[in-house]
Amino acid sequence: MGIEAFRKLSYGLYVIGSLKDGQINGQIANALFQVTSDPPTVAVSICKENLTHSYIQASRKFSISILSQNTPMTFIGLFGFRSGKNMNKFEGVNYKSGTTGVPVVLQHAIAYIEAEVTGELDCGTHTIFAGRVVEGHILNNEPPLTYDYYRDIKKGKSPKNAPTYAEPEAKPRSEKAPKYVCTICGYIYDPGQGDPDANIEPGTPFTELPEDWVCPVCGADKSKFDREG
Amino acid sequence: MGIEAFRKLSYGLYVIGSLKDGQINGQIANALFQVTSDPPTVAVSICKENLTHSYIQASRKFSISILSQNTPMTFIGLFGFRSGKNMNKFEGVNYKSGTTGVPVVLQHAIAYIEAEVTGELDCGTHTIFAGRVVEGHILNNEPPLTYDYYRDIKKGKSPKNAPTYAEPEAKPRSEKAPKYVCTICGYIYDPGQGDPDANIEPGTPFTELPEDWVCPVCGADKSKFDREG
Repeated sequence: MGIEAFRKLSYGLYVIGSLKDGQINGQIANALFQVTSDPPTVAVSICKENLTHSYIQASRKFSISILSQNTPMTFIGLFGFRSGKNMNKFEGVNYKSGTTGVPVVLQHAIAYIEAEVTGELDCGTHTIFAGRVVEGHILNNEPPLTYDYYRDIKKGKSPKNAPTYAEPEAKPRSEKAPKYVCTICGYIYDPGQGDPDANIEPGTPFTELPEDWVCPVCGADKSKFDREG
Repeated sequence: MGIEAFRKLSYGLYVIGSLKDGQINGQIANALFQVTSDPPTVAVSICKENLTHSYIQASRKFSISILSQNTPMTFIGLFGFRSGKNMNKFEGVNYKSGTTGVPVVLQHAIAYIEAEVTGELDCGTHTIFAGRVVEGHILNNEPPLTYDYYRDIKKGKSPKNAPTYAEPEAKPRSEKAPKYVCTICGYIYDPGQGDPDANIEPGTPFTELPEDWVCPVCGADKSKFDREG
């Protein structure tokens, strides 16, 4: 039925900030668009299993931080592949409490928007929340991170709860040092590329990575990796 | 309130095909995302004033053609700045009738999707339609056209009914040959760039354009242009 056509859709990458009873959370989203310009309204698709979903349903508000193209994979992994149920994602992150009270991530953001929910549409596993913009600022003029750039240049994947998740494709086996796949998030360690964010040079086999090296996307340790192929 | 932050959101550009009582129509949309992957569902925001809106509400189905980066401005203008109320947009365009009966634009498309409406959300001037995917195909591997590329490289604008429409900015007056603005669609003729799609070389002043030259976006003739500044 050809859902691979979905891969040709274009997106940005955003951190959605949310709040419930004084608890704050943030998650990565790509399924987000402007719906109307008068009044300015945005819509975002959020998985029902995510903490963000229950927070938005409770407080009826959310923030959107538009990420810079220079955002490191670890930062995307922090908000995209870990659950706020088990940790405080904001520890060590530059953010502020917005005018609506929701957390607004400022780190690696080029602009942000705060919105109050005006409608929602149940779509099975996900809900589309429409929200009227109550605040919005541009922080700098760096180019925005697009999902294409994240996937093609940074070699990033979608977590299982993302609208854009798809089963990993089978890849041909390489003759050279093998690639290793993170069983948590799907990130593939490619020895030919190394891990620039962690100062791992191209040409470093997986087996020679330091023992304290972790997945640049989700933070899993080396034991969570399987040899590919 | 900072709705200029909206300009930092990332999008693709799509032709939405629709149908009502044997009449067909197509329009450009950028506000479109995948909502869920199981079952595969997409959502698109459509202005209530557009013919497409009434066609989708009547037939409960639509198609999405994902445009190639090489799509000429005239093609985007045809589907983006003209109304199907006054013309048959499909004349001379390569398209087919899809499995659901909706028109599917194949020209300048890299992939397409057909969907049946499963839900809708009233957002004031626009409606978000969610649709379950019933068909989808990749046609080629050209890169998709993004809204950023259209705006920054091709110098395209949004029509008034687009979610992303914003009032044109005031521009500083140039010392050189003046720019001219299309009063219909907002396209700016920049003599420094010419109009490559029409073989107009960079350096050609507006006043020296052939009399039969038309706006590359909306097809308006020269009389519809005002000097900028």
